[in-house]
Amino acid sequence: MQNNNKKMVASVTSRDADFAQWYTDLCLKAELMDYSDVKGFIIYRPYGYAIWEGIQSYLDRRFKETNHQNVYMPLVIPESLFQKEKEHVEGFAPETAMITTTGVEDLQERLIVRPTSETLFCTHYQKIVNSYRDLPKLYNQWCSVVRWEKTTRPFLRGKEFLWQEGHTVHASEKEARKETLDILEIYRKLGEELLAIPFVTGRKTEKEKFAGAVETYSIEALMHDGQALQSGTTHYFGQNFSHAFDIKFTNESNTLEYAYQTSWGVSTRLIGAVIMVHGDDEGLVLPPYIAPTQIVIIPIQSQKTEVQEASNHLYKQLKDAGFRVSLDDSSKTAGWKFAEYEMKGYPVRIEVGPRDLERGEVTLVTRHDRKKHQVKLTDVKAMMPNLFKDMHDTLYRRALDHVTKHTYEAKTYDEFKDYIKRGGYVAMSISGEEAEIQIKKDTTATARVIPFDQHLITQTCPVTGQKATQTVWFARAY
Amino acid sequence: MQNNNKKMVASVTSRDADFAQWYTDLCLKAELMDYSDVKGFIIYRPYGYAIWEGIQSYLDRRFKETNHQNVYMPLVIPESLFQKEKEHVEGFAPETAMITTTGVEDLQERLIVRPTSETLFCTHYQKIVNSYRDLPKLYNQWCSVVRWEKTTRPFLRGKEFLWQEGHTVHASEKEARKETLDILEIYRKLGEELLAIPFVTGRKTEKEKFAGAVETYSIEALMHDGQALQSGTTHYFGQNFSHAFDIKFTNESNTLEYAYQTSWGVSTRLIGAVIMVHGDDEGLVLPPYIAPTQIVIIPIQSQKTEVQEASNHLYKQLKDAGFRVSLDDSSKTAGWKFAEYEMKGYPVRIEVGPRDLERGEVTLVTRHDRKKHQVKLTDVKAMMPNLFKDMHDTLYRRALDHVTKHTYEAKTYDEFKDYIKRGGYVAMSISGEEAEIQIKKDTTATARVIPFDQHLITQTCPVTGQKATQTVWFARAY
Repeated sequence: MQNNNKKMVASVTSRDADFAQWYTDLCLKAELMDYSDVKGFIIYRPYGYAIWEGIQSYLDRRFKETNHQNVYMPLVIPESLFQKEKEHVEGFAPETAMITTTGVEDLQERLIVRPTSETLFCTHYQKIVNSYRDLPKLYNQWCSVVRWEKTTRPFLRGKEFLWQEGHTVHASEKEARKETLDILEIYRKLGEELLAIPFVTGRKTEKEKFAGAVETYSIEALMHDGQALQSGTTHYFGQNFSHAFDIKFTNESNTLEYAYQTSWGVSTRLIGAVIMVHGDDEGLVLPPYIAPTQIVIIPIQSQKTEVQEASNHLYKQLKDAGFRVSLDDSSKTAGWKFAEYEMKGYPVRIEVGPRDLERGEVTLVTRHDRKKHQVKLTDVKAMMPNLFKDMHDTLYRRALDHVTKHTYEAKTYDEFKDYIKRGGYVAMSISGEEAEIQIKKDTTATARVIPFDQHLITQTCPVTGQKATQTVWFARAY
Repeated sequence: MQNNNKKMVASVTSRDADFAQWYTDLCLKAELMDYSDVKGFIIYRPYGYAIWEGIQSYLDRRFKETNHQNVYMPLVIPESLFQKEKEHVEGFAPETAMITTTGVEDLQERLIVRPTSETLFCTHYQKIVNSYRDLPKLYNQWCSVVRWEKTTRPFLRGKEFLWQEGHTVHASEKEARKETLDILEIYRKLGEELLAIPFVTGRKTEKEKFAGAVETYSIEALMHDGQALQSGTTHYFGQNFSHAFDIKFTNESNTLEYAYQTSWGVSTRLIGAVIMVHGDDEGLVLPPYIAPTQIVIIPIQSQKTEVQEASNHLYKQLKDAGFRVSLDDSSKTAGWKFAEYEMKGYPVRIEVGPRDLERGEVTLVTRHDRKKHQVKLTDVKAMMPNLFKDMHDTLYRRALDHVTKHTYEAKTYDEFKDYIKRGGYVAMSISGEEAEIQIKKDTTATARVIPFDQHLITQTCPVTGQKATQTVWFARAY
């Protein structure tokens, strides 16, 4: 059984021995992705893509409930258009892939494959926004973008990735600022409700904000190895882009005014977050609401009629109730199946065997704690909603405990350095960008967020000795 | 009210006066799309994109019901990989956009922006298919593709368009052939059930088939102007690509065999079909099941409390019942609203006015026949399902009548030429490719399909005078 052997769980690296290798092993062996012939461009295999579809489905519903509309902008941006907003082009220029020829004929102007679509949305908005009555415009698009990254890792950083990018136009600063924070809250809830990830939210420092933004906010997740992962951002643009792209509207006082804009996005990087927050040495651990398959039924001694019948009946019952369930009655060994579905992180495994059936029972195994439960066959369907809720809550709490245990406050720079080595977030009150640059140089840690709830830990910045102005959470990050 | 004037329906060209201009007017004025700064790349505005989302939702459900899985392959194909299948590269080579540089550094190998992804799927399949136990693989992806077309028209032919591309691998010719026809039937039903378009189905001639396919099948729609539109295709590849990409599997007899493959796709071209099949001089006519907004409620004298209350109540009632409904209580005139929503092809308009309300009634106007109906307010919700079904069936029958009335059988080449001038399909029994080439030269008509239900109209080919081998449907086509 060559096919089986090559998938043995034994071949996954231990998480604590080599986290990076463990991660790559999981991505490949759980069949989430594969490499393509072009470095940095990955293949999203069915199992990985299904996780993305779950995220899409959740967010698309939330966006539509809040009156956002989907659109699709072109894949390409003329080089001259891309250069209209100065900071924006400086932020992205080294990363752009350019179409220059059809092979037969060279193009008159080089076309940039979109790394992000601000310039395209703005050009369109300039045409369609005339009056405050046209506002707000709340557009979103689902697409892939290309950024010519040098170092790439599956889901975390690629030359191409899938994402959604929202771009909105408003008649007032207040409304645009509210949008920026409302979307941040939708993203935070995506973590709380679907991914079982307690995102830390806050504002980015000037140094870390998006190219062209007035303010950037982000959701940050803490991976099992203590490194942070920026998992989504929302940007308040003020009038920066509307000045550059001449997006003006007649306001209620009948005078021309530049519009107020936002943009925001999350990407397939979230798949990486789910893997690295919840996974363990046996493989993926998928929270039940995002798991593409929530329950797998495995008949034991499936040649027996009563086992077949009970398995098929249970499968139909759970499927009809709306659960994402699969039944594996293939000829592979039960041991192989157990290991395979643990590797893939299916939340619940139900073993249907003749001895259990004699007592009207099945064995139910929950992936997140690998505990076995003897359960009445007739109770299975009814218990699922509460079981899923418990599993989800447990995973969320476990991840939150991890954050709490690995969040420190530093009163001195030595303390800071010591905490950073342990992994996790370190809060410190600093004077400004000078301190931030020094910290990165000394420790590789970067400013993750300026939390909304501000209090100064020290009055003086431990790095520069100057007056501390704000408390910033730092971490080493992906 | 400059904003209103520029949208006046009067500015749409008459459909019979200039069909091409009428089509372009509608695309722009119904706000389905807009042009971008790069010729051939369009912006899918919210209303146009919502039609595509309706098509996606229908097909994605059907694909999943039939065990297909979504994946995502890279945007780019190394030039050397693209050239692996000879006929395939010859078919696409003049149309490819190539990424050659990052602006800072030239790439070592030119990357083709996918015009279609056979080569990417095949490379992956070569890695993951080993045994008949791994088969079938039934993958689909939703994405955009780029083809460097010279002549472009919104939705019908663009340098970039959105589509789904299915790529499947099977252990037998029989199963792969069945897949090719099963998907064709899903496409045909998409027309019958969602778009109210009676697609003609059949096999493509050798001359018209896909580059690299053994056989190509298509769905063809007849536009109001009598021209046909190829609206989707399915391809049986046999072992052509598996030979080129070395996709072998161990079959049940334990010997190595090359795999059997298919591919298939429909695109945003379907939006063009919906416009050109159903639209009229007043604008779009959207069949109710695909219409992004099915019902619009327009309060007449909306300052009156009873009008406001009845409108809001009706809106809530219809929304809660799952209809896609909107309420326009803006300050624009009723006349402007009527024209605007007729232009956008909303299937049902409900006018809520004080005089009707006195009798407990509203005025309901159906877009497809522009008829007014006095309806009891309390009956509106309950009557909708049947009303939609009637509208859908009427639109389907109207389109089918159009096909029937414009389908001819030609016994002589003179008859053929005469019928082709009238617009529509002309069936003729021909000897083969020589006749097909002559016909295109003389009349610009092309072979649309070889219908499944074959009978010879004449024993001799009217074009070449040789023995007729098959009956082919011809038409001028987009």
